Amino acid sequence: MKIAVVGVGAIGGIYGGLLAHIGHDVHFLLHSDFEHVQRNGLRVDSVLGDFQLPKVNAYQHAADMPQCDVIIVALKTTANMQLAPILDVLLKPETTLLLLQNGLGAEEFLAQHYPDTSLLSGLCFICCSKIGPGHILHLDQGAIRLGEYSPQQEAGITPKMRAIAELFANTGISIHFTPNLLQARWEKLVWNIPFNGLSVILQQSTQGLLTDRHCRDLLVELMEEVIEAANHCGFTIQAHYAHVLLHATDKMADYQPSMLLDYQNKRPLELESIYWEPIRTAAERGFNMSKTRVIAQQLAFLDQQNKQ
Amino acid sequence: MKIAVVGVGAIGGIYGGLLAHIGHDVHFLLHSDFEHVQRNGLRVDSVLGDFQLPKVNAYQHAADMPQCDVIIVALKTTANMQLAPILDVLLKPETTLLLLQNGLGAEEFLAQHYPDTSLLSGLCFICCSKIGPGHILHLDQGAIRLGEYSPQQEAGITPKMRAIAELFANTGISIHFTPNLLQARWEKLVWNIPFNGLSVILQQSTQGLLTDRHCRDLLVELMEEVIEAANHCGFTIQAHYAHVLLHATDKMADYQPSMLLDYQNKRPLELESIYWEPIRTAAERGFNMSKTRVIAQQLAFLDQQNKQ
Repeated sequence: MKIAVVGVGAIGGIYGGLLAHIGHDVHFLLHSDFEHVQRNGLRVDSVLGDFQLPKVNAYQHAADMPQCDVIIVALKTTANMQLAPILDVLLKPETTLLLLQNGLGAEEFLAQHYPDTSLLSGLCFICCSKIGPGHILHLDQGAIRLGEYSPQQEAGITPKMRAIAELFANTGISIHFTPNLLQARWEKLVWNIPFNGLSVILQQSTQGLLTDRHCRDLLVELMEEVIEAANHCGFTIQAHYAHVLLHATDKMADYQPSMLLDYQNKRPLELESIYWEPIRTAAERGFNMSKTRVIAQQLAFLDQQNKQ
Repeated sequence: MKIAVVGVGAIGGIYGGLLAHIGHDVHFLLHSDFEHVQRNGLRVDSVLGDFQLPKVNAYQHAADMPQCDVIIVALKTTANMQLAPILDVLLKPETTLLLLQNGLGAEEFLAQHYPDTSLLSGLCFICCSKIGPGHILHLDQGAIRLGEYSPQQEAGITPKMRAIAELFANTGISIHFTPNLLQARWEKLVWNIPFNGLSVILQQSTQGLLTDRHCRDLLVELMEEVIEAANHCGFTIQAHYAHVLLHATDKMADYQPSMLLDYQNKRPLELESIYWEPIRTAAERGFNMSKTRVIAQQLAFLDQQNKQ
């Protein structure tokens, strides 16, 4: 079974690296790190155990890659517009697409282009970052919530999901099935919307945000707004979930959310999938995410400044 | 007629300096700049004409000052808790207190302590800053909206207001009377809440905020929220006032709002009077200033960080 990893940042690097490490046939499509990885392979410093892959299948162009049975898309959603020419080359009729991306909208976008392709998504609960070319640091956690996309929302637990879980069986990564992927995406937004945004705006890692009284109030109030939005969109998230996530984050190692790292490295921020698409989706159901909108507008300003 | 100026920052410096410059008997109570001003006087670089006052009545302690007919309070509202021992010394029965301060709550606070003292407030529409000890830069504008405080809100145009306007007659400063001081305070908040807050959070002067599309939307939406809050509190501000202020600010010279200067100089931010008091006042009338609250919470975090 051939596995492609499209995008080898922190997420593609850790999960693709683990799959290669346990012996799977993994093919990495790289961009800026191509030459380094082709020459030196991948290095992973992980809480699951450090390892090096001195020789990996590294590619600069999709056209050079084999067609694959599983394609892991680990690009930032800001790069999804560039996916079509890559997937056109890599896809076979029976290929499974596995998106490891945050926010809303990626499945709908891909389902329009590839209506007959199985589309699965993994929501990654992991603290990791790329700290150098081909060099991934995995600090904490690692579990994936896995679901299959269905326009009817509730896909249940499918054979394709079991097959993906099988792939990860010996990696040390826990796979948790979710029968309702979009519900899981909204649940993840309950964390991502407050923590990613405020970490960029206030230039703080998680513990700095959590320990300030006013900022902690703001985190909770944003979480509550996302929960309310999700419930307006037909999902069911209990109000106390905000506090569950808050206390879980209290116990996590201090962490720089991925959007803060993107900002610091002058990469574009995933505002469309993490902010604007949820705001629009809720507005269509008559709910105004007014606090989230303030955060999104501030981030849009900072993102624009960052590009200059 | 003796005039005291309590607090000689940008506002106390420019208005007190102008009054002294045209020959009034002005007594300045200084804090950090005392020694410099006692030795060198005040220097004012102003669009109305530069001038120096080589010798001013400078004091380090209120106890050394004469009782005054007019006391101009030009401290930041964050220092109002320190006013009582100063005013106890300076006040005569017929003294007029003139507050040159932003936000809500200062009159109510002082009226509790000095119920028999005439309390006037001037809202300053001015671009000025203190650029060195005893050295004021006045870049643009300068008008004062003057009103008398009345617990019944509508004080009308009073003899005390005319007397203060008389004092400023030859300074080049326009005095505009407002019969309803609290309405005028809310109108000023329509500008202060968005521009002061976002300038600190996004580290931008006015033109930088205005020219970004998302940030401009946010400015307008915050202004509209303040207008809605004011209208809930029994005042009358038209919806289009947001656009009036926006276009006026477009035409103003690029400007660092006073809160941004306070932040950069590690001075405490006027969050109580400009944010929390309006938020509480609106909440008592059943209106939730949800966007303003996000800004206030972010500012509270930054203010706290700034103190460390």
